[in-house]
Amino acid sequence: MTNVSKQEVDAVVRVNEVIDSFLSCSVRDATTISPFYGQLWRDIQRLIGSGGKRVRPTMTVLAYRAFGGDSVEDILPIAAAQELLHLSLLIHDDIIDRDYIRYGVDNIAGAYEKKHYSHVEDTNDRLHYAQSAALLAGDLLISSSYRLMLESNVEPALLLEVQKRHGQSIFEVAGGELIDTESAFRPFGEIDAQTVALYKTASYTFVGPLLVGAILANATEKNLETLELFAKKLGIAYQLRDDVIGVFGDETMIGKTTIGDIREGKHTYMVEQFYDCASEEEKAHFELYFGDKDVQKSEAEVLKNLFISTGALKRTESAIEQYATSASAALESLDLSREFHDQFKALITTVTRRSK
Amino acid sequence: MTNVSKQEVDAVVRVNEVIDSFLSCSVRDATTISPFYGQLWRDIQRLIGSGGKRVRPTMTVLAYRAFGGDSVEDILPIAAAQELLHLSLLIHDDIIDRDYIRYGVDNIAGAYEKKHYSHVEDTNDRLHYAQSAALLAGDLLISSSYRLMLESNVEPALLLEVQKRHGQSIFEVAGGELIDTESAFRPFGEIDAQTVALYKTASYTFVGPLLVGAILANATEKNLETLELFAKKLGIAYQLRDDVIGVFGDETMIGKTTIGDIREGKHTYMVEQFYDCASEEEKAHFELYFGDKDVQKSEAEVLKNLFISTGALKRTESAIEQYATSASAALESLDLSREFHDQFKALITTVTRRSK
Repeated sequence: MTNVSKQEVDAVVRVNEVIDSFLSCSVRDATTISPFYGQLWRDIQRLIGSGGKRVRPTMTVLAYRAFGGDSVEDILPIAAAQELLHLSLLIHDDIIDRDYIRYGVDNIAGAYEKKHYSHVEDTNDRLHYAQSAALLAGDLLISSSYRLMLESNVEPALLLEVQKRHGQSIFEVAGGELIDTESAFRPFGEIDAQTVALYKTASYTFVGPLLVGAILANATEKNLETLELFAKKLGIAYQLRDDVIGVFGDETMIGKTTIGDIREGKHTYMVEQFYDCASEEEKAHFELYFGDKDVQKSEAEVLKNLFISTGALKRTESAIEQYATSASAALESLDLSREFHDQFKALITTVTRRSK
Repeated sequence: MTNVSKQEVDAVVRVNEVIDSFLSCSVRDATTISPFYGQLWRDIQRLIGSGGKRVRPTMTVLAYRAFGGDSVEDILPIAAAQELLHLSLLIHDDIIDRDYIRYGVDNIAGAYEKKHYSHVEDTNDRLHYAQSAALLAGDLLISSSYRLMLESNVEPALLLEVQKRHGQSIFEVAGGELIDTESAFRPFGEIDAQTVALYKTASYTFVGPLLVGAILANATEKNLETLELFAKKLGIAYQLRDDVIGVFGDETMIGKTTIGDIREGKHTYMVEQFYDCASEEEKAHFELYFGDKDVQKSEAEVLKNLFISTGALKRTESAIEQYATSASAALESLDLSREFHDQFKALITTVTRRSK
């Protein structure tokens, strides 16, 4: 997110401080229960300190300021809570995906498997216990996202409104996660990628954080509705761009392999488009490699070329463009100052045209 | 819980209605996202309808009334939220324990493994996906415990106080769950059973629900402190009794095998006492069977006799008696009417002397 203003950058620094202070207290309180429990919180603190762009807290602060909020300091714990929710989802997503690395370092399960539980001899048991620790870490962070909000300096009735929206985001993202997981083993076409993008990504990355910020600034009902529309379109565009980068991105820029999604056989919008427009021969060719856990770079290149030659990439780019256009249209109906209008406009460009 | 008054029994009926209505709405909303997501909520609804004594909501209503609360209907969603938290913990506990049955029926993972994901051919994958669905179900219920509270008719500032205590319970129970899990593979003596009982059981079964009820009735700070002490003692006694029943109970009355804890090698207070007072010979004898996954009934009898002959059972009974005495002492310092004093008193008896 390179287009945010100095105020949002400052807010991110303060958000990190709020998170760190909350986690330090948690480490301290957990240690009084047991040093082993303190360790879990230290790992949570280490993990959140290892990465993340704080997109969600930034969205909350941005919307809050855009709709006239002028006490950013008072709402920081609510902005920070968005990041705790994000971390909890990442930790549980990694359990589901059986991943042990996040932000280039050991995630919770990874640290427990390699370090804290290394004395457990049976490999299956060791992995299971490590994932159990990660399960509890994620549970704690879901609850912590509500708890941290209680530290904000906001009218109680308003805070309850915010919590209502927060609960809605969790409801939506869990549904998105479920159908995304199921799409791997349900017949192709039963679950569509745009629905997954809306619920798994847009819901808690843009819709929730932006609406929470706007609610805190007492935005009108009409603005809230339009902002929700804006956030949904932007969020889906964000996910579709993510899927394109996941295959066509520059590995040195995105910091992960571009074979992952292909090996996993991830049912992205681009894959849906491929199936919609490829010949039987092209599909047969595609299926030689797609979803193969041992696929090599050269074979992945074949798939990339198929995405290009069939027009699947082009269709995806055009869908991203359409979502961006819809987001822009919604933006024009929002009551925003020129300054914030331009910031939201730049956000659309960043989200849809980014290469990492 | 046979000692509760008609008011608490009526409240449990209403609590069940509140839960059912909340879950019906969730099924409906989830289905608009995807029928597959609706299924997850239907399984949650089925599971909670299959069992549970609603001990925790009962505690909330009891404390609320005991300290002068007179609008039970207004606080029902908060009482019901205690049960949603309980269910979320059971679902995640079953993942950690790799159990697929709860309340005598398929739990979430069990239903997904046997039914909804039966078409997934690879057994490991099928189990993993089934546990992933259960993971999400538990996540949703943690969040739902906060969400359902928002439906209560309570002053916003007071509700935030309640949430603070609720968050504290989750913080404590997750710590208890972690050290309980770790006690299976950490050197004996590093984690003690009374600490586990306090955090894994007492925290969210008695301390949280009772304090929440009392907070809602605006109980004094002094009463809250004394009630917390009462609840901790009562809760530890409850868990110690549970451990005794887990080995010595009547299977037809408790509805589960009394070999489970022995097979699992569960480090209960009674086991700690055994190690504290047994001879080397008795320990060697004990370890022939304790923690053996294939242990038979006749061998379990050997262990039962060792618990008796070494005095480990007697020590545990006496510890339960001591906790009951401490709870009674705390009770005498609570400002309660004769009616509620007697109800709390009867609660101690039920909890410590129950046989199921």
